[in-house]
Amino acid sequence: MGYSSAMRQLLIAALVIFALFAGARAQEKTIAERLGYARDAKLLIVHADDLGMAHSVNAATIKAFETGLVKSGSIMVPCPWLSEIAAYARANPQADLGLHLTLTSEWTSLRWGPVSAKDRVTSLLDKDGYFYLTETDAAAHADPKQVEMEITAQIERARALGIQPTHLDSHMGTLYQNKDLFQVFLRVARSQKLPVRVTRTDSPSTLSPDAVYIDRILSITPDVGPQDWGKFYTDALRKLEPGVTEVVIHLAYDDAEMQGATFNHPNWGAAWRQRDLEFFTSDAFRKVLQENGIKLITWRELGKLIK
Amino acid sequence: MGYSSAMRQLLIAALVIFALFAGARAQEKTIAERLGYARDAKLLIVHADDLGMAHSVNAATIKAFETGLVKSGSIMVPCPWLSEIAAYARANPQADLGLHLTLTSEWTSLRWGPVSAKDRVTSLLDKDGYFYLTETDAAAHADPKQVEMEITAQIERARALGIQPTHLDSHMGTLYQNKDLFQVFLRVARSQKLPVRVTRTDSPSTLSPDAVYIDRILSITPDVGPQDWGKFYTDALRKLEPGVTEVVIHLAYDDAEMQGATFNHPNWGAAWRQRDLEFFTSDAFRKVLQENGIKLITWRELGKLIK
Repeated sequence: MGYSSAMRQLLIAALVIFALFAGARAQEKTIAERLGYARDAKLLIVHADDLGMAHSVNAATIKAFETGLVKSGSIMVPCPWLSEIAAYARANPQADLGLHLTLTSEWTSLRWGPVSAKDRVTSLLDKDGYFYLTETDAAAHADPKQVEMEITAQIERARALGIQPTHLDSHMGTLYQNKDLFQVFLRVARSQKLPVRVTRTDSPSTLSPDAVYIDRILSITPDVGPQDWGKFYTDALRKLEPGVTEVVIHLAYDDAEMQGATFNHPNWGAAWRQRDLEFFTSDAFRKVLQENGIKLITWRELGKLIK
Repeated sequence: MGYSSAMRQLLIAALVIFALFAGARAQEKTIAERLGYARDAKLLIVHADDLGMAHSVNAATIKAFETGLVKSGSIMVPCPWLSEIAAYARANPQADLGLHLTLTSEWTSLRWGPVSAKDRVTSLLDKDGYFYLTETDAAAHADPKQVEMEITAQIERARALGIQPTHLDSHMGTLYQNKDLFQVFLRVARSQKLPVRVTRTDSPSTLSPDAVYIDRILSITPDVGPQDWGKFYTDALRKLEPGVTEVVIHLAYDDAEMQGATFNHPNWGAAWRQRDLEFFTSDAFRKVLQENGIKLITWRELGKLIK
């Protein structure tokens, strides 16, 4: 009985610990709950990348913003058409515009380089004096100190032009390529008090319990045929899990400028971007949102969670 | 008689001096003659400016080159679409491509800055870190040493990309705005052994007797109405004087990209450039050349005169 009593006490203690742990887990609020939504809410950020890259990108994205179906985007500060989108940002201070921090220049006919003085960020430059063509080359050569200087300069130039960024992300994911770059990215974001495009599963050891993150990213891939474009997105949205999902899209017109820029690269090319534009400004998209109880949110809301 | 004899000798001496002077004048060869043409030949360089500025400019100019009616152009090295026109230059080494040395960034939605490290050419930058919008602001602020560094860097980048420039000129004429800048321009051109867009009447004191210059520049002005475009050029070509004339034209399509770039500036805007494209690729232009015995030449020929 002494033995049985000891066992019983141990069992009760184990149950109490389990109950406390389960309770703590249950009380750990999800991002959706921290935003004031139900735990099972399906929240979607529709995010257009690459603003500033070309007139075609700016014009198509602004048109999509006007439908109310696309509410977020991010701007490439080193790109030639920055001034055009900066004027839009000044005229539309409510727009959810972040910065698409840029360390690559991936098209071969249209190129760009750093905001910083070139002789101070030489590790970011290819032999022609532009950013590297690929994220892997950029990450392999980048000195993290120079990356910190350059992305800080991009944020400062944006602010000087009257852009009030609501969030940060990384063009072609260069800043997610290795731990050193990712740490620079998070440190700069913290110092700027801006949320970053980070999912729960991105390097979780670096995320503090109160970090602002999204649950998942949805993006179309080159294996989807043009005829299946709408079906891919519609199916994905019908199956959307609760929490915050960001669908990362690329908008532009399939016009001469975009065809010239992307002539040798159909993936993320001119026709690709026109297809994204057509789906995300369509009644079909509006309907799938309604039918599946999906709410559109923005980075502005996420940014309010930052202490 | 003594008096009369003295007078006669004086008269003879005067006639001899006059004859020698007239002979020397007659023997001073014109540029046309130095090129191997008759003294009264009408020689025309049809020159498209602003290559590299936009895809629309590159595409329209390449199309015009293919007609054989436009044979020369110059490239803006700091501009976003440099790589596209550099690829054309490498594939077409016979093309008469010079450099349109650039110290201004005149459109408000599409901008560019120096090839040199920014912290070394601060006198060339506006508050946003781009070149100044106007040639007068650029010239007023420019440190000639920094101008020399920057235009040399533009030439070096062009050569590094495989462009073999045949001549130099100056975007918006910034390098003609004052004597210091003009001297830098001529000094860099001499050191590069390249001819420059200089007319006989441009600062003649700086031109040596064997300098290579053209006789005059023809360019359309904003007071010509769109409906008079062809008439302006046709009339000017019918009245063309002998010697070397350069007609400076601006080619592009009146498309979304050019409309976006030039939206607030109809002068040298998208429709203007489409009108230039239409005239200089037309049968009407070909006919006026033939009917008036006008020969098309290029800067490549002028460059051969440089010692």
